[in-house]
Amino acid sequence: MATGTPPFAVRRLKVLLPLFLIICIDIISCQQFIIPYTAPADCNVKNFSISRVFHAVTTDGFGCIRCPGSLSDDGKCQCPKDSVLVERDVSGNLLDEARCETCNGNSPALSSPKLFCRCERCQASFTNTSCLCKPPNVLVGGLCFPPGSLSTNVNPSVNFAQLKFSVQSAWFVQNLYSASAACLVFSNLTACQALGNMCVMNMHSFTGVSTDACGLFNTIYRSRAALSSTQDISYWRVNLPWLYYGEEPGLAGRVLQTDPVPVGFSFRGRNKNTDIKLIAAVYNVRGEFLRWEPVGGQNIQLCPDTKTKQVAAFSFGTAYQQSCDLSVKELLDTYPEPLFYDVFMELGGGENKKLLPLPTLVNNQQYNGRFINQESMKNWYLSRRIFLVDGLSGREKSLSAQPKVIRVTSSVKIRFQLVPRTLEGQVYPPLIIMTYRDVPITDIDTQTVSITFAVEYEMDQNEARMKTNTALGVMGGVAVLYSLLKTVSWKRRIASPLIDVETVMKFLLFYAGDLANVFFTVTVGTGLYWLIFYKAQQSVSVLLPLPAQEEQFVTYIGCAFALKALQLLHKLILQVSVDVFLMDWERPRSKAGRTVQAAGESKREPSPVSIWRTYFVANEWNEIQTIRKISPTFQIIAVLFFLEVLGFSNLALRDPWPTLERSPEAYTPAYSLILRYGVAATLWLCIGLLQVIFFTVFYEHFVEDKVRQFVDLCSISNISVLLLSHRCFGYYIHGRSVHGHADTNMEEMNNNLRREHESLCSQRGLLPNSELQTFQVSITNRLRVQYDRIREPFSRVNGPSRLMDAGSCNGLEQQAKAYNTMNYFLGSIIDHVSADRERVDFIVLKSFVHTSLFCLPCCIIYHAHSFSDVLYYGNEATLLIFDTLFFCVVDLGSQSFVLAAVLTYLQQMILRLLRNTLGRKNLVNKTMVDERFLI
Amino acid sequence: MATGTPPFAVRRLKVLLPLFLIICIDIISCQQFIIPYTAPADCNVKNFSISRVFHAVTTDGFGCIRCPGSLSDDGKCQCPKDSVLVERDVSGNLLDEARCETCNGNSPALSSPKLFCRCERCQASFTNTSCLCKPPNVLVGGLCFPPGSLSTNVNPSVNFAQLKFSVQSAWFVQNLYSASAACLVFSNLTACQALGNMCVMNMHSFTGVSTDACGLFNTIYRSRAALSSTQDISYWRVNLPWLYYGEEPGLAGRVLQTDPVPVGFSFRGRNKNTDIKLIAAVYNVRGEFLRWEPVGGQNIQLCPDTKTKQVAAFSFGTAYQQSCDLSVKELLDTYPEPLFYDVFMELGGGENKKLLPLPTLVNNQQYNGRFINQESMKNWYLSRRIFLVDGLSGREKSLSAQPKVIRVTSSVKIRFQLVPRTLEGQVYPPLIIMTYRDVPITDIDTQTVSITFAVEYEMDQNEARMKTNTALGVMGGVAVLYSLLKTVSWKRRIASPLIDVETVMKFLLFYAGDLANVFFTVTVGTGLYWLIFYKAQQSVSVLLPLPAQEEQFVTYIGCAFALKALQLLHKLILQVSVDVFLMDWERPRSKAGRTVQAAGESKREPSPVSIWRTYFVANEWNEIQTIRKISPTFQIIAVLFFLEVLGFSNLALRDPWPTLERSPEAYTPAYSLILRYGVAATLWLCIGLLQVIFFTVFYEHFVEDKVRQFVDLCSISNISVLLLSHRCFGYYIHGRSVHGHADTNMEEMNNNLRREHESLCSQRGLLPNSELQTFQVSITNRLRVQYDRIREPFSRVNGPSRLMDAGSCNGLEQQAKAYNTMNYFLGSIIDHVSADRERVDFIVLKSFVHTSLFCLPCCIIYHAHSFSDVLYYGNEATLLIFDTLFFCVVDLGSQSFVLAAVLTYLQQMILRLLRNTLGRKNLVNKTMVDERFLI
Repeated sequence: MATGTPPFAVRRLKVLLPLFLIICIDIISCQQFIIPYTAPADCNVKNFSISRVFHAVTTDGFGCIRCPGSLSDDGKCQCPKDSVLVERDVSGNLLDEARCETCNGNSPALSSPKLFCRCERCQASFTNTSCLCKPPNVLVGGLCFPPGSLSTNVNPSVNFAQLKFSVQSAWFVQNLYSASAACLVFSNLTACQALGNMCVMNMHSFTGVSTDACGLFNTIYRSRAALSSTQDISYWRVNLPWLYYGEEPGLAGRVLQTDPVPVGFSFRGRNKNTDIKLIAAVYNVRGEFLRWEPVGGQNIQLCPDTKTKQVAAFSFGTAYQQSCDLSVKELLDTYPEPLFYDVFMELGGGENKKLLPLPTLVNNQQYNGRFINQESMKNWYLSRRIFLVDGLSGREKSLSAQPKVIRVTSSVKIRFQLVPRTLEGQVYPPLIIMTYRDVPITDIDTQTVSITFAVEYEMDQNEARMKTNTALGVMGGVAVLYSLLKTVSWKRRIASPLIDVETVMKFLLFYAGDLANVFFTVTVGTGLYWLIFYKAQQSVSVLLPLPAQEEQFVTYIGCAFALKALQLLHKLILQVSVDVFLMDWERPRSKAGRTVQAAGESKREPSPVSIWRTYFVANEWNEIQTIRKISPTFQIIAVLFFLEVLGFSNLALRDPWPTLERSPEAYTPAYSLILRYGVAATLWLCIGLLQVIFFTVFYEHFVEDKVRQFVDLCSISNISVLLLSHRCFGYYIHGRSVHGHADTNMEEMNNNLRREHESLCSQRGLLPNSELQTFQVSITNRLRVQYDRIREPFSRVNGPSRLMDAGSCNGLEQQAKAYNTMNYFLGSIIDHVSADRERVDFIVLKSFVHTSLFCLPCCIIYHAHSFSDVLYYGNEATLLIFDTLFFCVVDLGSQSFVLAAVLTYLQQMILRLLRNTLGRKNLVNKTMVDERFLI
Repeated sequence: MATGTPPFAVRRLKVLLPLFLIICIDIISCQQFIIPYTAPADCNVKNFSISRVFHAVTTDGFGCIRCPGSLSDDGKCQCPKDSVLVERDVSGNLLDEARCETCNGNSPALSSPKLFCRCERCQASFTNTSCLCKPPNVLVGGLCFPPGSLSTNVNPSVNFAQLKFSVQSAWFVQNLYSASAACLVFSNLTACQALGNMCVMNMHSFTGVSTDACGLFNTIYRSRAALSSTQDISYWRVNLPWLYYGEEPGLAGRVLQTDPVPVGFSFRGRNKNTDIKLIAAVYNVRGEFLRWEPVGGQNIQLCPDTKTKQVAAFSFGTAYQQSCDLSVKELLDTYPEPLFYDVFMELGGGENKKLLPLPTLVNNQQYNGRFINQESMKNWYLSRRIFLVDGLSGREKSLSAQPKVIRVTSSVKIRFQLVPRTLEGQVYPPLIIMTYRDVPITDIDTQTVSITFAVEYEMDQNEARMKTNTALGVMGGVAVLYSLLKTVSWKRRIASPLIDVETVMKFLLFYAGDLANVFFTVTVGTGLYWLIFYKAQQSVSVLLPLPAQEEQFVTYIGCAFALKALQLLHKLILQVSVDVFLMDWERPRSKAGRTVQAAGESKREPSPVSIWRTYFVANEWNEIQTIRKISPTFQIIAVLFFLEVLGFSNLALRDPWPTLERSPEAYTPAYSLILRYGVAATLWLCIGLLQVIFFTVFYEHFVEDKVRQFVDLCSISNISVLLLSHRCFGYYIHGRSVHGHADTNMEEMNNNLRREHESLCSQRGLLPNSELQTFQVSITNRLRVQYDRIREPFSRVNGPSRLMDAGSCNGLEQQAKAYNTMNYFLGSIIDHVSADRERVDFIVLKSFVHTSLFCLPCCIIYHAHSFSDVLYYGNEATLLIFDTLFFCVVDLGSQSFVLAAVLTYLQQMILRLLRNTLGRKNLVNKTMVDERFLI
């Protein structure tokens, strides 16, 4: 039990160190006791009288002894450099006077002083002469070399290219020549390793002259060409470290992409194998082999983190990236000397364990001034052996000085490449990409350096990209045809045979919509492909595209979104400018009322037909404008629930695990944009589809179907609706009451309903014995002209002339007249159609082709149930896809599903508000119903 | 440069170790060269012929020498225990034969062999005799004690109480006696520290006998009572470590809650001070002082994590907790011997730096078999000095054996307590609470042990709790009165003077609602209080309640939610059972129509009054049932946006920073339930309030006001609405058209509207020249009886008799008759009221008191605009508070705002659906309007 320590510091401790010293002196009390013998006065004179005899404390501190020579600064005897101090005889008895014994450096003793303890044999390289390395032998670094073994002209400078200066490194000055000479002359493995390490500290760079570390290494390397190589690897010469692969052009490609690693990775199943076992042989800077060390944790991952997270880096398929800023001071404290790692991958286990050396690409490596490793792969010059922090080579004057520069690995990236078309998860030998950074020491306490460690997995994406592009091309072509067809149909519907600018614009608009669908299909398909094939594969056969490779995909999504937005806008504009007219079939009671009293009272002014049914119908029409086949808010909430609460968003992580729940302690890799899109779009579409099915199959049958209800209402209220979405094309909802009159009191209404329920009256359809009430209509141009002429007063009232308030009474009258005329006009046409069946061509609408091609230039009514095209209801697909794209685009931009949900909600709200407001305005303009009744 | 290492292992490496050995032999070639001298044959005979001369390799390996005695196993000369091997003379010349020189153990040499190198002076405790510690002196642990210095009867066992066994610890066997003796006899500080450490390894426990480590320590401690203490701390005796505070009862309380730390913590501002600087004196198990070490990072926080996160533990106010499972094997590798820490808090800086010793509470500490530190504070026995991992005391046979048990600190908790009513952020000395765990080593490779490190901040919450309870009490009392008032009012409204069970039930229901409001107010107030005062304080004056202290708060929220749900349910049930009747003022044209032809044609059957206006009004009434003053979906989305996207949820973290954005690298403390509730409820209420303001001030004035529109519609359609929410109380919307007729065509309607716009006709109010259309009505019981009698056929049709389909025609007729009667009956009453002004008491409704107290038992109509009470619209407060509570309760349960949002949405949707469906059913029952028109 040696020196103790002070029970320290409490409440009013002032300064720490003084206390320490005093107590130390207290304890070694013998020294105090002896102090008189070696009074300071003696020490002061010692330099002047060399012959005087000094008394000193013995080295064990328990006795006093006469010294043969001078005293050291701490009051002990001191001997010359070549001799040892002897204070006790061989049995331990204290001598009267200490002796300085000179070691016999010559043969046969060949000894030199060792630790002031005794004379010991000197280093082996001195053996042949004496412990003095006499010229012409050369004494360097404690070794004695025979003359002429190596030119003494070596270049001990380290080039810090990033800082544009080089440093005469103390370590290189001390060791470069001796290491190379010992390596060359004595084939000393440690020396060779030390030389190799110096080359590695120079980042494997050649400067053209052969006097720097790498030059010397290569000289020796070439001189060993004749000897056999280690482990049958031609780049690994006997007794030398393996630093380089060969420098033939294109070798890198052959090394990296010829022989797959003889191990298959598999994510699940019986052969599950995702462990990447890297192991490194660790050498210190002096070239001594220290140990085998598993890679990971403390050695290559400098950023501190929990063990679970760090281990995730070596699970195959998990894209790993960890960055942090580390304090330069701490780095220097932790790594006063660099450690060197030869990294291998461990294959197999148990008896068949094999090691695969991993090639390294040093980004900073120079080859005669060129950064060849930053060029294309065919110029790469692969190497081996890496270090992480080098605070040694930057020390200029002495090894204990503070370094001028430290060199730090700013980025370590391990890159795995999948063998193309493998089905067993085979990879090529992984490549370690190192990027070093030179950090000049300015203010060591506050300086930090950012460090990244990443593991990447890539596969050749050209094939996938080609397939995507092919799909795009083919489907894009089909889309052109489809859009052309649509344009032709549209031309017919507006009854214009000319091909003008408007036609081209229309074609482009149609094409935008179709192209958007193509892009959407392709991107969702791609996302789903990666989601399924990456996350569900057993043996590894595909790997995700890297973030850089996702750009094209994101562009496609952007295109899809922009084009879809254009299409939607176009549709909305068409919808809010559709022509609507509500035809009232009700005739005043006095004329067409009860047949009993019709004859005698024809002169009497008839009681007016109540407008309230029209109001009711208009009000309902206004309300179903933005009804959809899904509940858009539920859609958002449900998607959010799946993504954020149930954790479907975890499917988009760049790892192969298809689990929804992740422990918060586990490593969370980055998100893959493609997978994020895939998950979000698929979820959105699936939930949307389920909703559509729910609403159409269940809800509309058992709860309520707003559109159907509207049609029924028309029928009960004796009002037909004519919708002209194009100049000569539109829809017609037949609403003529089967009871003749609808404008009646509750008793009769209930009676009517009951009678219909009991099938006591005819059916509601336009044609006898038909239930069909909704049709597509195509009218002739002549008819349209007539229609427009009658409608003229409508627009006049609602047009600019509305400002003249004085004329408004007149306007109202004209408007009412026009309304009645129109009512009569349309009624007679429908009556005509319904009566004169020969003139009408009834074709059951089967397909789009029918409508577009067989549209004859006369007034024709097809039956069809498609008037909802002018509502949100009939455009669910477009709206759903647009919402999906909107959601995904916001998410891709912000990486936040919640924000995407919020913005999608706002977008839906605003769009709906706009559509409602404009639709209402349009309805008011076209039907003359006062806006106040559309509530 | 000594042994090198093999350039290793490539492609087909088989086994690692064999290669190693062969190469080692290759390199030290001299040894091979010498092997003939020490042929195995010689070694085999050496045991038989002791006189034979052996040749051996010298210790430096370069020569051969004759040995005086036997050979060691590695073929070198071997000397007896007390002597040293001499191979070279003093100048380094190799001797012909090695000599074994015996050290002179007696005075004056007093030497013993040291490292086989030479004879050195033996240990100081031997000084007085010789290097042989001759009896009666006692030789223990390399020290020589004078006789009788300490009883040799010591107990070297370590008690692992959790495992119910004790171990004869090798370390204790070797060192307990010597350490105590050296401490007692020589006052050796290191020995005293080592003894103290052994007591600490026993977790400071006393077993009653004084022969164990703590007993011995206390014996020595008491023997030093006369000497001065270190640093004026009476518990810290000179030359001893400070292990205990005194054992007087209640001392713990005085130490922990008397003197505040003379430093104030402040979260922001000029004096910002949140750094907790803890520093520890580190001793090794042998009692040597190693260094001063800042606490944190590697020493007390065993769980690995990033530096930024670990540092957060020492930022005042940040509740910190970190847990992990560590591998026992790794712990043992990292801490082969325990380190001991004396923890201090560093106060001030620069010249005035002071250290404050932190008391420690060891949970496992036993005092005569009692776990006193797990009892109440007055029994606590505070201590000092801690360790983290002790793999030493559990080694039974030898120090190099694998331990049988290791003792690990399973939990370190640093607890800060705020000085009550401080305004300068003063705290009492923080307490370190240690919990050790004994882990028996069974399968060391797979065993793990879970470890927690936490920093807690607490303050006395009694005052806050008392204030909350007082507020609850006072407001609860007021609520009783208010509910009583409501009950009285309700009694009047149902015109029943009896106090029966129903009355009590009703009172309880009213009280539930009011109590819910009280709870809600108090909880939101509390949440907001903590949010503001904790997050915004400059100098620390309040600290958050600990999770355990939040229970009461959560209970309050639960109560508020349950009571509010009850209230809401009650309101909804009332709403969906309200009595509605739509009075049609329209009279058939032929009678009351144009005056010109009224006289001559009175006999003719009048054309029926169209029911469509009634349908229209009923339809609109149905639509405004669930209109609210806010958009509930927008509310959810907006709250979610603020909480999750803008990061308001970060305000609920248990740290003092009011920042919304947190770096993902930073430490994220746990959430405080109170703050979470505070943030969520406040946000919800604020956004709700903003929405209400927006809708009432802007939207309803400039866009649309559905309720106002409905009243207007009544007026235009000539239909009044009578709503009887109670038996004798209800609302009346006066809708008599100012034009006499509304059942007319578009032309007249537009004319009417224009005339009204130009103020050409009378006003819409019930009374002449009044605009007021909405009233509260109170009817007499007699009137109600009459009303019910007329309504009888209504319910019969919609009641069970509906099943008889045959009678339905008859039913319909009766129903229509009843409808007409009711129409006439109510019309005459209103006419009467409006005409006979003397009989009617018009009181402008000013307050609730009016309605409830001045309700005279006759048919009275007050004016008021409050019929929306029977709609969602008039109950916005209740709905908003219910939604808030629902959201918060789900969030408190799941800690997920997204889930809360999803469920709140679903709840709103379901409730609305229910309300709509039941409301519609009720409307159908009460107004006779066919359900098919309510679309």
